Amino acid sequence: MANLLPALMQVGNAEIVAVCDASRERAARAARVAGTDRVYVDYLELLDSGEIDAVVLACPPSVHYDVALAAMARGVHVFAEKPPCITSGQLATLIDAANKSACVTGVGLNFRFATPVLRLREVVASPRFGPLVHFEIRHPANKPKAPMWEADTTLRSFLLAQAIHSIDLALLLGGECVEAESEVRAIDDSLLVRIHFRFEGGASGTVLTGNIFPYFDLELMAVGARSSVVALDKMWNLTVKDAEGDAVFGLADAKRWRSEWHPSPLDSGYARSGYLGELQRFFDAIERGEAFPADFRAMQPTYRVIDLVTASVRTQSLPEAVHG
Amino acid sequence: MANLLPALMQVGNAEIVAVCDASRERAARAARVAGTDRVYVDYLELLDSGEIDAVVLACPPSVHYDVALAAMARGVHVFAEKPPCITSGQLATLIDAANKSACVTGVGLNFRFATPVLRLREVVASPRFGPLVHFEIRHPANKPKAPMWEADTTLRSFLLAQAIHSIDLALLLGGECVEAESEVRAIDDSLLVRIHFRFEGGASGTVLTGNIFPYFDLELMAVGARSSVVALDKMWNLTVKDAEGDAVFGLADAKRWRSEWHPSPLDSGYARSGYLGELQRFFDAIERGEAFPADFRAMQPTYRVIDLVTASVRTQSLPEAVHG
Amino acid sequence: MANLLPALMQVGNAEIVAVCDASRERAARAARVAGTDRVYVDYLELLDSGEIDAVVLACPPSVHYDVALAAMARGVHVFAEKPPCITSGQLATLIDAANKSACVTGVGLNFRFATPVLRLREVVASPRFGPLVHFEIRHPANKPKAPMWEADTTLRSFLLAQAIHSIDLALLLGGECVEAESEVRAIDDSLLVRIHFRFEGGASGTVLTGNIFPYFDLELMAVGARSSVVALDKMWNLTVKDAEGDAVFGLADAKRWRSEWHPSPLDSGYARSGYLGELQRFFDAIERGEAFPADFRAMQPTYRVIDLVTASVRTQSLPEAVHG
Amino acid sequence: MANLLPALMQVGNAEIVAVCDASRERAARAARVAGTDRVYVDYLELLDSGEIDAVVLACPPSVHYDVALAAMARGVHVFAEKPPCITSGQLATLIDAANKSACVTGVGLNFRFATPVLRLREVVASPRFGPLVHFEIRHPANKPKAPMWEADTTLRSFLLAQAIHSIDLALLLGGECVEAESEVRAIDDSLLVRIHFRFEGGASGTVLTGNIFPYFDLELMAVGARSSVVALDKMWNLTVKDAEGDAVFGLADAKRWRSEWHPSPLDSGYARSGYLGELQRFFDAIERGEAFPADFRAMQPTYRVIDLVTASVRTQSLPEAVHG
Repeated sequence: MANLLPALMQVGNAEIVAVCDASRERAARAARVAGTDRVYVDYLELLDSGEIDAVVLACPPSVHYDVALAAMARGVHVFAEKPPCITSGQLATLIDAANKSACVTGVGLNFRFATPVLRLREVVASPRFGPLVHFEIRHPANKPKAPMWEADTTLRSFLLAQAIHSIDLALLLGGECVEAESEVRAIDDSLLVRIHFRFEGGASGTVLTGNIFPYFDLELMAVGARSSVVALDKMWNLTVKDAEGDAVFGLADAKRWRSEWHPSPLDSGYARSGYLGELQRFFDAIERGEAFPADFRAMQPTYRVIDLVTASVRTQSLPEAVHG
Repeated sequence: MANLLPALMQVGNAEIVAVCDASRERAARAARVAGTDRVYVDYLELLDSGEIDAVVLACPPSVHYDVALAAMARGVHVFAEKPPCITSGQLATLIDAANKSACVTGVGLNFRFATPVLRLREVVASPRFGPLVHFEIRHPANKPKAPMWEADTTLRSFLLAQAIHSIDLALLLGGECVEAESEVRAIDDSLLVRIHFRFEGGASGTVLTGNIFPYFDLELMAVGARSSVVALDKMWNLTVKDAEGDAVFGLADAKRWRSEWHPSPLDSGYARSGYLGELQRFFDAIERGEAFPADFRAMQPTYRVIDLVTASVRTQSLPEAVHG
Repeated sequence: MANLLPALMQVGNAEIVAVCDASRERAARAARVAGTDRVYVDYLELLDSGEIDAVVLACPPSVHYDVALAAMARGVHVFAEKPPCITSGQLATLIDAANKSACVTGVGLNFRFATPVLRLREVVASPRFGPLVHFEIRHPANKPKAPMWEADTTLRSFLLAQAIHSIDLALLLGGECVEAESEVRAIDDSLLVRIHFRFEGGASGTVLTGNIFPYFDLELMAVGARSSVVALDKMWNLTVKDAEGDAVFGLADAKRWRSEWHPSPLDSGYARSGYLGELQRFFDAIERGEAFPADFRAMQPTYRVIDLVTASVRTQSLPEAVHG
Repeated sequence: MANLLPALMQVGNAEIVAVCDASRERAARAARVAGTDRVYVDYLELLDSGEIDAVVLACPPSVHYDVALAAMARGVHVFAEKPPCITSGQLATLIDAANKSACVTGVGLNFRFATPVLRLREVVASPRFGPLVHFEIRHPANKPKAPMWEADTTLRSFLLAQAIHSIDLALLLGGECVEAESEVRAIDDSLLVRIHFRFEGGASGTVLTGNIFPYFDLELMAVGARSSVVALDKMWNLTVKDAEGDAVFGLADAKRWRSEWHPSPLDSGYARSGYLGELQRFFDAIERGEAFPADFRAMQPTYRVIDLVTASVRTQSLPEAVHG
């Protein structure tokens, strides 16, 4: 809620009518921040109140699942923080329910809408970049280190809590996935996950992720058919280079000049991280009667990959000194 | 208001009760965002309503001045975006009024409270850094290019709108200023401003700023007496190095290892830019009955420097091709 | 020769006695640079002259092969720029000959000895880094785009001329390789090569390379079992981070501080690129009667990987607009 | 000699005929590296030998002075590592002698010829950059910390050994200097030196240097009249930006795109550091009968600035804890 609530408060065509939380105190605190005095502890009561058109959920996935079904049954649009549910089976149920209702649904995959990712996607989509040949996503993370929610393993918890972002971006960049392979290595409670994708358009891509890293980052690199490369680092530095080169001011040594983009030093708010963009787009979709791009249905390939990865774990212990 | 309003909405101990704007429509829009339905077009009416303890102002400086005086006369605390007023004389009047009232006052100099600046100040204050010897602030900007508000010149407008930040940081880092010199060059509507400070503690410092640059940035570099250097770039990259060195993992070649800090790739909201920190600190000061560090009185040395700089302008025209 | 000859001139225990080139003029020019007047156009004559203890070869690989055999037959030590030969069969013959002679042999894989790579290897070998879990090497290149030497395909030419570096580094970092898989994609004359390694010690690693990129680079990234990461970029920036963190000067926010190494701004000569290190080490090996680490025998796993990769090519044409 | 000798060996139109050193052993060692067996311990004997056209000196400045005079008296061209002498008076004598002879003279100010500095100068000279308005050079250094050679103070030693580089670059960038001011602060054996220049063309510039820093660097930043900025960092990263912007591939957000240049990851040898360029240019000048740009005469403004700076020292002791 640290990011979603303030971002939501800035969405032009959304008004926060009420806040619901099993803890009335927590609900009241959020309501105060949100500038409302309507507080609920029972979500069914809220959904039945007729006061709201849409719900934005930031709960454990099992609660997302239950509330989403109840909401859609009542024609209330649903935006759920990732993950919307634990299993592919649950996702199928959510999609069914969405199909039967006229509801717009959405999942909080903020990186899709993060400014630097949007910039990178503009580059990849530009004619000069050429058709996408290959991309690599590195998504180092340092948690979770134990199972959470109702997920049965640390691996599935990690995939649902973290890797869902990089898998989603991979599928977004590559398009229709025709083949995926994965390798998981577990060293005590530390996981290293590698996924390789092949896409219908001919492109390939990889994701390297895991909770074994000392920090979080999300790095993207893509290669185009015209000898073009774009790379994003720390959600901050975007560099672009192609074979035609671009010496500054028409000077010599074109081969060694690159173009670099980064956010304003004063970049503030929820646009760079994507929280504002995803919510704004969700409420725009409701207003226009369109689908939201990251809706429940769009999650199906991602859950398929998550299922694939959970099947490929291999536990190992490393010798104390490989380099002795 | 793009940053202040959403930041204000996140301050724990502040509640937005009402919004006032000469345009009722603009006021209503902001009120909707802020989650209130109390809207005013006449600030005196608002101040007299008894509904509020404090006002947060984001107006032209002449309005800041009028409203601040009216507010303090009624015991209402005042936080004004920079600049709080145009002239040193007006500032003196504001300080007088503040002294006579029990009001907490504050000026919106967000960079003081920006996370990367706070980190830099921690480094400078640490014993290992040693006493501050010298600092350099580079504050490139690209506007304003014409006089604005009631300021009589582009230069004064620029100083009040932009350079106020870097001058404030200079005085914050250096302490009691015992001498300042400045040089201003005007090339058409483009200004280059250099200020040199000498401080009581023995340190020196410079500010290089102007509207002649193609972008905005705020770079800080400081040297300590123990051969230590800290540098901040793009409000993002902070690097630290001293003579003792710090080879990673105890390895060799200590001289070439540095420490680097940067915000999280996911850094979101209004902390990095300082908007949240300044407002939170202002409302904490009210709650605790303390002064706010960047209050009206604290602006006096900054306005003295601004006056100094406005006296040192020198217009010139550059030959078309110095390097012909 | 642009790098090898001047580097060789700086090796302490080597003296350039004579220069041999099929073009007498070219030989004479190099001899002048090298400070000798002994010039040969027939390498057999040189080898039979009894004047030299070792030869340093920078020729096409078929010449390397012939000269190396002739040299070893005469007890002359051999250092050959990469690649020493075209095929694995030729390599086996070279190794046989080396075994039968008492000659020290060496192949010019300069990146092994490049200062930033040595630094990275120190980090990976340090106890605090922990056992190596995974590494990724990115080796973008932009040539060759056509077959060269006697290699039958652009792919094999590329592998022998360029990827030999990254494959060698991969095997150096990982140790005994127990499994390798590769994928090659050919888009017109542009190649993208991916290789995945699994090593006896338990580590895995990947190489991404090809001539499809707009520039040359060699980036290395390694993950250790103790949540440690080291990354090298542009043979210039090395960053290290582990879970224990290292806030500078004992300050807060340890998680966001990293250590960074880069060469001196004045870094000059042939050490950073490894040309000096490899030759110095080769002549030290001769002096001490030891083997040189990158000798003919040590190339066998590398050629095995090259053979594997050449078998995995897949030509494709990309649709004009994947992102249409 | 670590850089000059190997660089010299690569100069096309120079041949190393003999080596002279007061220590015969040292001379012999260098001669071996240089590929000659002509060794001298008495420089007059060498100069009288008739064997050489030019001398390249890397000695203490007093030896530079004596040998240069003796060489010019015999019509032998002279290239001396910086500094060529200790005092302005000595420099005047050297210039007189050069005028009387037909000798080409040169001083080893390698940074003038360093590849990244040449790139920066190309940018500054390009019409799109516009006339130079202001530049800043930061030249942190960490030695010498005690007087060396016959220089009477640490300050003069530092200026002759180190700051001579940045002062020379300042005068090179700015042109005819019409005014210079300096401030020196001495904290124990640590110096901080600031120099401000005003140039005939209208530009201004500053140098910040000293031995108080924990490392060596040479950073240049220049501002042009067309809102253009070029900055060089670590002799490695060059970035350029102007108001017209340059969004990559014609995309949006032009304001936030910059151009960046850096050397090849494989950059090797003595070009980037300027040692090769200065020597090549010196021998070209001899061959063409031209003057070398950094000759004895060209040093006069630099020595004038050095004299100015030595007159402006101010010793101080900083309180133990400015930030207590």
